Amino acid sequence: MTNLAYVELEARYRRVALLGETSAILHWDTAAIMPDGAALARAEQLAEMQVVIHGLKTAPEVGELIGKAETQLGDLDDWQRANLSEMSHQWTKASAVPEDLVVALSLACSACETSWRSARPAADFASVKPLLQEVLDRTREAGQAKAEALGVSIYDALLDDYEPGGRSADIDRVFGELQAFLPDFLQEAMDVQASRPSGVLPKGPFPVDTQRALGEGFMKAIGFDFDFGRLDVSRHPFCGGCPDDVRITTRYDEDDFTSSLMGVLHETGHAMYERGLPEAWRRQPVGNALGMSIHESQSLLIEMQVCRSRPFIEWAAPIMKEAFNGSGPAWETENLYRLYTRVKPDFIRVDADEVTYPAHVILRYRLERALLDGDMTLDELPAAWNDGMKELLGIVPPTDREGCLQDVHWYDGAWGYFPTYTLGAMSAAQLYAAACDADAAIPAGIFDGDFYPLMTWLRENVHGKGRLVTSVDLLTAATGQPLATDVFVDHLKSRYLA
Amino acid sequence: MTNLAYVELEARYRRVALLGETSAILHWDTAAIMPDGAALARAEQLAEMQVVIHGLKTAPEVGELIGKAETQLGDLDDWQRANLSEMSHQWTKASAVPEDLVVALSLACSACETSWRSARPAADFASVKPLLQEVLDRTREAGQAKAEALGVSIYDALLDDYEPGGRSADIDRVFGELQAFLPDFLQEAMDVQASRPSGVLPKGPFPVDTQRALGEGFMKAIGFDFDFGRLDVSRHPFCGGCPDDVRITTRYDEDDFTSSLMGVLHETGHAMYERGLPEAWRRQPVGNALGMSIHESQSLLIEMQVCRSRPFIEWAAPIMKEAFNGSGPAWETENLYRLYTRVKPDFIRVDADEVTYPAHVILRYRLERALLDGDMTLDELPAAWNDGMKELLGIVPPTDREGCLQDVHWYDGAWGYFPTYTLGAMSAAQLYAAACDADAAIPAGIFDGDFYPLMTWLRENVHGKGRLVTSVDLLTAATGQPLATDVFVDHLKSRYLA
Repeated sequence: MTNLAYVELEARYRRVALLGETSAILHWDTAAIMPDGAALARAEQLAEMQVVIHGLKTAPEVGELIGKAETQLGDLDDWQRANLSEMSHQWTKASAVPEDLVVALSLACSACETSWRSARPAADFASVKPLLQEVLDRTREAGQAKAEALGVSIYDALLDDYEPGGRSADIDRVFGELQAFLPDFLQEAMDVQASRPSGVLPKGPFPVDTQRALGEGFMKAIGFDFDFGRLDVSRHPFCGGCPDDVRITTRYDEDDFTSSLMGVLHETGHAMYERGLPEAWRRQPVGNALGMSIHESQSLLIEMQVCRSRPFIEWAAPIMKEAFNGSGPAWETENLYRLYTRVKPDFIRVDADEVTYPAHVILRYRLERALLDGDMTLDELPAAWNDGMKELLGIVPPTDREGCLQDVHWYDGAWGYFPTYTLGAMSAAQLYAAACDADAAIPAGIFDGDFYPLMTWLRENVHGKGRLVTSVDLLTAATGQPLATDVFVDHLKSRYLA
Repeated sequence: MTNLAYVELEARYRRVALLGETSAILHWDTAAIMPDGAALARAEQLAEMQVVIHGLKTAPEVGELIGKAETQLGDLDDWQRANLSEMSHQWTKASAVPEDLVVALSLACSACETSWRSARPAADFASVKPLLQEVLDRTREAGQAKAEALGVSIYDALLDDYEPGGRSADIDRVFGELQAFLPDFLQEAMDVQASRPSGVLPKGPFPVDTQRALGEGFMKAIGFDFDFGRLDVSRHPFCGGCPDDVRITTRYDEDDFTSSLMGVLHETGHAMYERGLPEAWRRQPVGNALGMSIHESQSLLIEMQVCRSRPFIEWAAPIMKEAFNGSGPAWETENLYRLYTRVKPDFIRVDADEVTYPAHVILRYRLERALLDGDMTLDELPAAWNDGMKELLGIVPPTDREGCLQDVHWYDGAWGYFPTYTLGAMSAAQLYAAACDADAAIPAGIFDGDFYPLMTWLRENVHGKGRLVTSVDLLTAATGQPLATDVFVDHLKSRYLA
């Protein structure tokens, strides 16, 4: 290697990544086990980590090294070039945002998230609104700075953090297609459902220890290695940590095991992606996950495409029944399948079925764009939320707890994140269809709880690619076409109208 | 404040402290809950944190700022002067050690500690010896560099990290006095004990959940606030985290609750010290704990002086009995007191009684000095350990598991730490005697499980002082004299010969 500038950049970004991993473990700790009184100290620790990381990322010599390295591209292979390009992109964004804004934003997010923890159960939007305003203002400020550096809109600049290269114009088109299809489809699916016996929830209580053991068993079946990860509890389930220490969380309900269990399977899909990222590129920008829509495609592929399918439920139902010593018709495969594919407009996004889920996302996407563009104020948010729910799903949340307080995202500074859920759901349908076409052992394995063929295909076609290619190119290489609404539509039709 | 250099130093050391807190939480995570496979990644994360902290501490401008600030001492009050003096001391030590040695030492410790985790249960010293050699070599190298900067011996330079200003000459004297007293006293205490009924261990099993709940109850009685801390499990019990997030650990034995419970009370003593450090000086060097002997004095004051005393056991015995639904003579106060004050030479330091404990420490102190001075090799360590046990306690460990593999300290890089245990035990006796003299409500409260008067005295005389004064001055102010062997001796006589 004669491109010494590139070599030096790798060393520097390795340091950035190690500090990022440290922050990720702290974030997990904050959500999963930190005592409440430590919140302020933790906020300051995380902000200081941000300062150090920001300092390393934006040091003037980094820009110079990137410039130098780019003059010797011939020395670099494809992975190295993609890595350098990621570095350059990150540098452009990071150096656009001044350090004091990084600190202010980090502190604002910590304070707001902490306040949201009590505001949500109390349905008290007013109490958290001033802190959310601070988060919004600082987010817009940072977005504006990045937007100028990238030559895109504020929204697209924020979206870029979650969906590199993503553009709201593309999202508008895809979401437009979905909105044209879904309302009628939802009615049709509900009609079909009404013509059949309705699912019966097995009767609890379901002890938390049993639920956890069952979840861990399924995680292992999918391929999760507990030598490199954990399952814990948090208010808002997530997948955190780093590729060699992947930490997923869930929340348990002793009266209903089905929701927590499926949540665990969902986060396991995220975890498998992290674990499967290219080991040779650990701690380099090109070794990271591609973006949140592909990340979500991996959780939804496991949850929606596989684990809510009839073949999986056929395998899993007797295991669930045995775990809880269940008896009676509620434990029959057909009933559990009905429960796991029930369609019902409801208030809470994380509990939504895959038919109504896009409506939740479209609402949030509209609202966050309006708030960021200055077309709406936070005072108007609760009512706008309720109006949107009425329009898109025909229901109105009784309080803000089931409305604009339900998701942590905005309160924690994740603006521009929501659309990736639905882009992920569509990508999941497309990837799973391609996987099943590519290898008949993949769908066949699910009948026996054998995920090995599927994971092998995903490692090769998704996980192991890191950021070598864009998400459009990844989808095209793996499935033969870029993101296409019709594959998702076909999936919904075959599951809910057949 | 016109001493602007000092103001800038406070800001800089605040950053150092925040990063130190982050590292402390990572260390806790490593010991308490990290999945094993993440060990290598964690080692690299911790090493990178060390690099960042070392960089902040040793930046040339820090030395310049300290020099400038010292020219305007008149602007500073006592706390600020003590703070500046701590900064200067830290700077001298930190800047003596080159960054690559900091990284090498951090990585060597992580690797060795990980290897020790399996070497210990396997009683396989040979497997961990090469990694321990690396730790020893790097420790000696760092010690040599600091020794030159401080103008002291290598051992005293390492001791300084745990006992600021401590000198092995003083330890030699105190340990000499103890060694002259203890062997005969041990025999006398054993004779007295043999003349009485021996303690009977209550019969288990004792479920872990009940043990934890009982421990938490006693922690609360002492004053531990779970809003600012946690109790978890680790192989080697410790108190970690930071003052606003104090995390103590224990390990449970379902056949014997007594040892884990007393361990919890011990760590609670450490935790109360951390929580009681002066809030106005959080994240400044002067706001830190004074050193490990005073730290240990706080855990041993709670454990040895209070919780193994008859008044405490009288209060606690019925609570223990009720928690485990116990019945029969094993649960009587007198029996539990006998159990908790039993003297018996044994192999394991952490399980040792307060009469034999100093022998364990004296052995380790001798051995670590010989290893650091080059008077002994690691090949000779297992036999030297066993010879020392034979000489000091009259017993020989059956394997290295009960011998030189039992403590994590050396394997994790803590050289020069061991003497602080016994210095702490002596300080504990002296402080508790002074506290009881100062306020009759203190010993009276213990009969009712009321720790408030004791904690009030400790906050005022120990915890709240931070590093404002040296440990000699702190002891003298609180007890009327510097560390004195006779107070400890009196305590032992009154407990074991009466």
